[in-house]
Amino acid sequence: MTNHFKQSHVGVIGLGVMGKNLALNIADNGYHVAVFDLDTQKVNAAITQEQNERKTGIAVRMQACHNLSEMLANLTTPRVIVLSVPAGAPVDGVCKSLIEAGIEVNDIVIDTGNSLWTDTIEREALYKDQFVFFSSAVSGGEVGARFGPSLMPSGHESAWRYVEPIWKAIAAKVDSTTGLPIERFEPGNPVTEGEPCTTYIGPAGSGHYVKMVHNGIEYADMQLICEAYQLLSDGLGMSAHDIGDVFNGWNKGILNSYLMEISAEVLQQADPLTSKPLVEMILDKAGQKGTGLWTAVSSLQIGCPAPTIAEAVYARAVSTQKNLRMQLNAKLAGPAPVSFSDAEKVEFIANLEDALYCAKVCCYAQGFQLMAMNAKEQKWSLDFAEIAKIWRAGCIIRARFLQSITQAYQDDANLENLLMADSFSQTLSQKHLNWRKTVAASVMQGIPAPCISSAIAYYDSYRCETLPANLLQGQRDFFGSHTFERVDKPAGDKYHLDWSAKQRTLSKM
Amino acid sequence: MTNHFKQSHVGVIGLGVMGKNLALNIADNGYHVAVFDLDTQKVNAAITQEQNERKTGIAVRMQACHNLSEMLANLTTPRVIVLSVPAGAPVDGVCKSLIEAGIEVNDIVIDTGNSLWTDTIEREALYKDQFVFFSSAVSGGEVGARFGPSLMPSGHESAWRYVEPIWKAIAAKVDSTTGLPIERFEPGNPVTEGEPCTTYIGPAGSGHYVKMVHNGIEYADMQLICEAYQLLSDGLGMSAHDIGDVFNGWNKGILNSYLMEISAEVLQQADPLTSKPLVEMILDKAGQKGTGLWTAVSSLQIGCPAPTIAEAVYARAVSTQKNLRMQLNAKLAGPAPVSFSDAEKVEFIANLEDALYCAKVCCYAQGFQLMAMNAKEQKWSLDFAEIAKIWRAGCIIRARFLQSITQAYQDDANLENLLMADSFSQTLSQKHLNWRKTVAASVMQGIPAPCISSAIAYYDSYRCETLPANLLQGQRDFFGSHTFERVDKPAGDKYHLDWSAKQRTLSKM
Repeated sequence: MTNHFKQSHVGVIGLGVMGKNLALNIADNGYHVAVFDLDTQKVNAAITQEQNERKTGIAVRMQACHNLSEMLANLTTPRVIVLSVPAGAPVDGVCKSLIEAGIEVNDIVIDTGNSLWTDTIEREALYKDQFVFFSSAVSGGEVGARFGPSLMPSGHESAWRYVEPIWKAIAAKVDSTTGLPIERFEPGNPVTEGEPCTTYIGPAGSGHYVKMVHNGIEYADMQLICEAYQLLSDGLGMSAHDIGDVFNGWNKGILNSYLMEISAEVLQQADPLTSKPLVEMILDKAGQKGTGLWTAVSSLQIGCPAPTIAEAVYARAVSTQKNLRMQLNAKLAGPAPVSFSDAEKVEFIANLEDALYCAKVCCYAQGFQLMAMNAKEQKWSLDFAEIAKIWRAGCIIRARFLQSITQAYQDDANLENLLMADSFSQTLSQKHLNWRKTVAASVMQGIPAPCISSAIAYYDSYRCETLPANLLQGQRDFFGSHTFERVDKPAGDKYHLDWSAKQRTLSKM
Repeated sequence: MTNHFKQSHVGVIGLGVMGKNLALNIADNGYHVAVFDLDTQKVNAAITQEQNERKTGIAVRMQACHNLSEMLANLTTPRVIVLSVPAGAPVDGVCKSLIEAGIEVNDIVIDTGNSLWTDTIEREALYKDQFVFFSSAVSGGEVGARFGPSLMPSGHESAWRYVEPIWKAIAAKVDSTTGLPIERFEPGNPVTEGEPCTTYIGPAGSGHYVKMVHNGIEYADMQLICEAYQLLSDGLGMSAHDIGDVFNGWNKGILNSYLMEISAEVLQQADPLTSKPLVEMILDKAGQKGTGLWTAVSSLQIGCPAPTIAEAVYARAVSTQKNLRMQLNAKLAGPAPVSFSDAEKVEFIANLEDALYCAKVCCYAQGFQLMAMNAKEQKWSLDFAEIAKIWRAGCIIRARFLQSITQAYQDDANLENLLMADSFSQTLSQKHLNWRKTVAASVMQGIPAPCISSAIAYYDSYRCETLPANLLQGQRDFFGSHTFERVDKPAGDKYHLDWSAKQRTLSKM
């Protein structure tokens, strides 16, 4: 296959679903792309797809490389190479091969896999004398990669200079006036207007950390929608199709989101094999790739309350234990079914919309506070208004709602928690009663709503000037002499009661 | 100070609160103990306390060592040395010093600190050519260490032979007939009858893993009691003293536990400075040493649902953010207060007792399932009946309730989850309605009950033959082509719908 051009602007290594689609996206935007994969079939598939999609009369822009030396020879310098290989050892494997092939110290390698953020920090240091190890998390799945993902790049700021024009070209675009995604899914016709959903996040690791938290929020977002589905299905006895209608209605309002939209599509999809609702033929055992888990672990280690995100991760684990659930279904009693009049159903659905919104705000509050707390520890300077902006399109959690978060951080860049923003505190203060009715109803009906209920406990915990942790500190002093502070003494002054003495006296430690 | 004896049977390095008390306990049981600490004042304190406590006419049993060579010279072989130093680098520091001082390959070093279980596995391998690195987690705090702790030893089974007689002598004791602790807190008068609360747990790391999970359960146990305190205080307007009476009443029934007992004591303690209830003078910011956190992290990594344990860890984190809570208290609305008639208060308290019990069972179910899943991965063979038995006394979570857990595992050693045991499934099936009323009431009153409510969601999730994870799998296939299994096809067969096509078809992957 002859190339009409000698040199490429960008290299792409790894032509799986994400890599291939990123390469096609980059090519759509006018760049010449040198591609390589250990699997020659994947290389051929990418080249062929580009040829088929490129309009007649327009030259192809992709060139196949048979090995990495060839790729390096074909790239303009400083070289920009996109890595799209599985996280972990494969990344280091390719880096090693690039060093052997002669990569140079100013060349930039962009790791776009779901790498663990701490690995990214290590790699930047490890390879710094051989090349610039940059990274960019990518959200939006296959379609996002092809037509416009949300991109979260981080690393040496000097490398961003070379990556920025490419990244801004290929990223998803948002209409500057409406804040809504500009959606166009035609090969060869990239979106060139609007605000690109990418921004330099910060030093190495920060972009992948932000993506990790995005995925944690995604888990919670999805779980909330699933809890709503079960409440309407098992609680109100509604059909999958009718619930899809409810979701489509909600998608026009405050719950607007890509996830809400596709959930309606899934619920209204008939199974090609049986014609029943497809959702009822899908086995209820959730898979996971691990990033939501990482978010929950990070929150625990850093001391940032993220219980609703953790509950979403756990809910997937419970779903995988189907055998145990089948057995326990026979052994654990639940309440008698409740019947709803039509008016009560309408009310329930309205309350549930409010409950979902309130719980969703809490999930985002947890995720953003987590990013803020980790940024403080890592000495990153994250711009949360920008982060919310670049999530408005291209990524899985895209929603009109993100505009409200952007606004909240534009009003106060140092928000300690999203609940502190007036827009959110006022809205939740208006809707919380409906939220409570929903949780109470789910509990009385025996329908699990781990995230919706965890979120109200989170809201109510943060409303408390005094939590019963005073008793907890008393317990800890009693059995372990761990000491406590007093409400009427300076912070940091530690006291201990000698609980085992006949006459208990208080000492200042 | 002259010793009346030449050689000691056991060495103790590290004479902080735990080390000193373990040494005194060992000496009480007739052993000669050689003690050392880098801080000579601590050595003197231990020696002096033993002299003061030893009855007139009975020879002292402790000998001070000025350095580790002296200790090694003073010990019978194979040497048994108890390490009671902070987890982490100090442990390796002492091991290094022992090697330099001439420790021998058959000598046994027992790490009794709260070391991370994976570190323990590494150390056994690291030191295996120099000495036997054994370990034993200790629960029971200061008083437990002194008069009878619960001990969780693990490591090379051959080393247990030398440790066992000492460990069984110093461990807490349980009356064989009643299953209740034999409590005696007099120096020099060890308890010699009853079942000792120690057993060989398994290979290196297993004992510390079990202790770690014990602590996770402990966090949840404590949080449940604290939630009950807040419900009775803020919800029913009860005084700390009266709530203490309720706890004392509960302590006579199914909720009997050391933690319930000491919580009542704390609530009924007057503050020496102001005479107000002490609990109201204690600052509500919970401290933590980290083990509960480790348990939650382990559960996420291994895929074992432990949401109620995680909520307890998060609740501590929320409590530390007191400034934020004070600010949010002014911004987030809650429901109007509810008033209770006397009869309604009695009913609420009775329901709360059932709710606490049910939630407690769920916490233990989560902890035990976690131990079982990790044991499977690590190829340990844990005896859960024995583990429940050794927790009946000496340790912080000791409770009559543990006898029921022992019984459940004696009936079926391979219980996948405690909820599968008839005793528990039947009791929860009787009490769940009162549990639900409690959770619903807490939500409608705006009083946070993160653990009590997480536990009912856990219970209800496990009751479901079908969870809405089918929708979740549909969403994942839609945006990421992650595929799903079908309810009507063999397990493991993966399907994908081409959601972006005009005519969507199903493919088997």
